[in-house]
Amino acid sequence: MRILSGIQPSGRLHVGNYFGMMDPAIRLQDDGEAFYFIADYHSLTTVHSPQELRENVRNVAVDFLACGLDPAKATFFRQSDVPEVAELSWLLSTVTPMGLLERCHSYKDKTARGHEATHGLFAYPVLMAADILIYDSHIVPVGEDQKQHLEVTRDIALKFNNRFGDTLVIPKPKIREVNAKVPGLDGQKMSKSYNNTLEIFGDEKATRKKIMSIITDSTPVEEPKDPSASIIVDLYRLVASKEQVTTMENDFKNGGVGYGDFKKRLFSAYWEFFMPMRERREELLADPEHVDEILKQGALKARETAAKTMERVRKACGIQ
Amino acid sequence: MRILSGIQPSGRLHVGNYFGMMDPAIRLQDDGEAFYFIADYHSLTTVHSPQELRENVRNVAVDFLACGLDPAKATFFRQSDVPEVAELSWLLSTVTPMGLLERCHSYKDKTARGHEATHGLFAYPVLMAADILIYDSHIVPVGEDQKQHLEVTRDIALKFNNRFGDTLVIPKPKIREVNAKVPGLDGQKMSKSYNNTLEIFGDEKATRKKIMSIITDSTPVEEPKDPSASIIVDLYRLVASKEQVTTMENDFKNGGVGYGDFKKRLFSAYWEFFMPMRERREELLADPEHVDEILKQGALKARETAAKTMERVRKACGIQ
Repeated sequence: MRILSGIQPSGRLHVGNYFGMMDPAIRLQDDGEAFYFIADYHSLTTVHSPQELRENVRNVAVDFLACGLDPAKATFFRQSDVPEVAELSWLLSTVTPMGLLERCHSYKDKTARGHEATHGLFAYPVLMAADILIYDSHIVPVGEDQKQHLEVTRDIALKFNNRFGDTLVIPKPKIREVNAKVPGLDGQKMSKSYNNTLEIFGDEKATRKKIMSIITDSTPVEEPKDPSASIIVDLYRLVASKEQVTTMENDFKNGGVGYGDFKKRLFSAYWEFFMPMRERREELLADPEHVDEILKQGALKARETAAKTMERVRKACGIQ
Repeated sequence: MRILSGIQPSGRLHVGNYFGMMDPAIRLQDDGEAFYFIADYHSLTTVHSPQELRENVRNVAVDFLACGLDPAKATFFRQSDVPEVAELSWLLSTVTPMGLLERCHSYKDKTARGHEATHGLFAYPVLMAADILIYDSHIVPVGEDQKQHLEVTRDIALKFNNRFGDTLVIPKPKIREVNAKVPGLDGQKMSKSYNNTLEIFGDEKATRKKIMSIITDSTPVEEPKDPSASIIVDLYRLVASKEQVTTMENDFKNGGVGYGDFKKRLFSAYWEFFMPMRERREELLADPEHVDEILKQGALKARETAAKTMERVRKACGIQ
């Protein structure tokens, strides 16, 4: 069973990314043959500085490896190291009805949010279909927001198979269960667009400052407080042990402990939780050649798989 | 100076194709470094049978070589033998405004004529831009109907250069002068869609029959006739010598010769005109490996050029 996941190289990863996407993806590497790619072709629809793109790709690679992505288990590579995917994207375009793309939400959503209305943004679902289909992926873990894109991929693959015979593997979505609520520092969903994030590899002083400035109500120290209505507890649950969480919940309910104290406990648990990853990250940052080599080896393996699919595809449609 | 031309592999070539496109392209091989590709990626937007596509590609290759395309002068190759062009097409998509494509006539025209409204048909001008830009083409000979596509190519190249620095060569159009009027057998423009064509390598008997059945007016044999209003004379001008044309014109004006006789002269001149090409074509058909080898060598050279452009392009946008 091959599992495919694309990773957007879009700057510093935060706690919301970690629990929403990274951690589930990394866990999946034990469940099948995982192919994880850094989606730099896609990224070009929004990132226009070559320097920024290069840095983002390197950062996301280092962060994923630091957080436990194991290149011995998962094939980890850059999308653009397998340019065959662009060729498949064209071939799929010739069977993709315009109506299918016109119905996609993401283009409308992104342009409504001020992104430039480019053809790349519009054609994105076709490249995404190529990403999935070129590796004969069986399972694609997606969030609810990406469910439509996977349906588009399935539609395109069926169109191709109908026209040219059974050639492409039809993938299945695996809807990511959202089992961890990750609030941002202002209580909204943690998201870069709300500017309320907590980076997983942020600077110690800045992170402490961010946590200490979480806004709370004005309940006095000695009064009982409601743990179910506190961002502090929600975030603490993600990074502290069960016992620590129980203690904090009790201290909330019993009163006698102030928010400042709870915030200190949150910072301390947060800092400890990411400590081994932070250390591993320092090692990786000190050895960029090692990271390059991992991506290179991943690309070799991915390209081999892609080449086999492309041979089938080219034969099927008559260009070989 | 590099000259680029794409050739649609769309079945049997006719006299209209020959004088409108093949002959001018073949003449241009002496004027600069010509890159001529058989546009099989594009063809997939309309041809859905792999067998038909393969045959069309082979036929058009043989026909061009038979008609005088010289692989020692022009680089002659299949579009899909340089898949880098699909990668460039994606990269260009990320700078291509949707409005630019929405304004293109060809998509509307083709869907109005019953072609399936696919994304391939819509995205065609971007792939065409990639075809042109990947070979650093300076000159692209186009018919009036393709002028808009070349403007789109220039716009896209300028957008890319504006965003990422001076990377792509901005091509110039060379509007093909229509110096030869090629009427179809019914007097309309010769075109497969009107079913009024005369194939350049058609069967002798069938071709004679086609020419003999050109519809004429009912002027009696002995009466004078108007050479300026006759398809027979128009077609004769293309394939006969100046002296022969003058003789026919005089015979028209003087009367005494019937249309049947003029048609026989037309057939005979037509048959003789394409005779050396017909013979060369028989040789090529008998040696398919030779044709394959020509296309293979062409692809090697084209791919080398494309690789250099892609290195520049990838560096410029940050994926290398």
